[in-house]
Amino acid sequence: MKIKTPEYIFLDADDTLWENEVYFREAKRRFALLLSSYAAEEKIMEFFNAVQEENIPVFGYGTKTCMLGFLDTASEICGGAIPGEVYTGIKAIGRELICHDVILIDGVEDTLKTLSGNYRIVVATKGDNIEQERKLHRSGLGQYLSGFEVMNDKTENSYSALAGKYGLRPEEMVMAGNSVRSDIAPVIGVGGTAIHIPHEMEWEHEMMEMPGSDRVIEAENFRNLIKILL
Amino acid sequence: MKIKTPEYIFLDADDTLWENEVYFREAKRRFALLLSSYAAEEKIMEFFNAVQEENIPVFGYGTKTCMLGFLDTASEICGGAIPGEVYTGIKAIGRELICHDVILIDGVEDTLKTLSGNYRIVVATKGDNIEQERKLHRSGLGQYLSGFEVMNDKTENSYSALAGKYGLRPEEMVMAGNSVRSDIAPVIGVGGTAIHIPHEMEWEHEMMEMPGSDRVIEAENFRNLIKILL
Repeated sequence: MKIKTPEYIFLDADDTLWENEVYFREAKRRFALLLSSYAAEEKIMEFFNAVQEENIPVFGYGTKTCMLGFLDTASEICGGAIPGEVYTGIKAIGRELICHDVILIDGVEDTLKTLSGNYRIVVATKGDNIEQERKLHRSGLGQYLSGFEVMNDKTENSYSALAGKYGLRPEEMVMAGNSVRSDIAPVIGVGGTAIHIPHEMEWEHEMMEMPGSDRVIEAENFRNLIKILL
Repeated sequence: MKIKTPEYIFLDADDTLWENEVYFREAKRRFALLLSSYAAEEKIMEFFNAVQEENIPVFGYGTKTCMLGFLDTASEICGGAIPGEVYTGIKAIGRELICHDVILIDGVEDTLKTLSGNYRIVVATKGDNIEQERKLHRSGLGQYLSGFEVMNDKTENSYSALAGKYGLRPEEMVMAGNSVRSDIAPVIGVGGTAIHIPHEMEWEHEMMEMPGSDRVIEAENFRNLIKILL
């Protein structure tokens, strides 16, 4: 399927260009292990997931908010105080998470190279600016991009503002990414076109049903963008 | 003194457009009070300042990194573990700090209104994107701006990149702000022009000697930008 050629293509970053969820899962697994003498993993993660739904709107996305959630959970599970070795462990997990290696998803570099001959590519990602810019730098993908936008949230309003920033009407926007909640639904909501590139790991926070729309295009994988867009 | 008219003017935000340091000082004062039964304020703040010099390059600027520094300090001062009431207190201080009111510095709104008739104004601030965008939203100043850039650091490299983003050579850049380290020295370093608008409160982390250059202009206050730029 081909779509009407736009000048700009917008792409998600985490779990679209590079691996991300795998690192957060590993950090959560290590955190649960750190508290394993206090409670079962299931109870720990249930509390953590609930507290993050409160923390994220106040503190934003990213590693530091994840660390605050670990600390809230440790305080709850350990009876108020946070034991010294638990605190040290959380700090170590956080430091590793915020500086993790960048593993590009298969085909990303070649595909961006090809697409950048025909489109201006803007990466639009949620998250924390210091960690997203560090990942961009490590990825080596900056040379293919016309913009790198770290957004506090991906809502219909924020996509409308993003379109405006690049001189587009929202319905001219084409966005590709793995998350139905962040990359697909709000883009469809403002009248744009969304390309869904599934990733085997999805963050629970992001899960939602795919909206029924003929402006959603399913890609098998990142390389598939070439067939869709060129 | 008049300078050659550029199309763009870049402005710092914290303690240039709106009060910031006063809130961080109040948060640190409350934090020291929270630990006052464990150690003297001077010792607490000495440890905190030292640990933040290590934390900031890894975790970035802003409230969440300040909270991590408070937690590191509490862990050190309280002997490893963080007592429950100390943890709860730090979380409360952080939540208030990240959502504080925005108090515009005298003359800012009128001056931006006047300048925006003649210049494209871009705000370039260090910090954490969620809190800086929240402050921008609360300030009501967005209507006068052509850009709002949250930077991980203000180095010569980052100013060169910023100039490039707006189609300028670094030596065409004119930047106004309160911090010699962040707003003046690196702009002079890349060949640009810097306007220093002093603020009575300066963060210790930002202090440095003013570079000797005829491209540094001293403003008495924010309103003074009109006389300098128009």
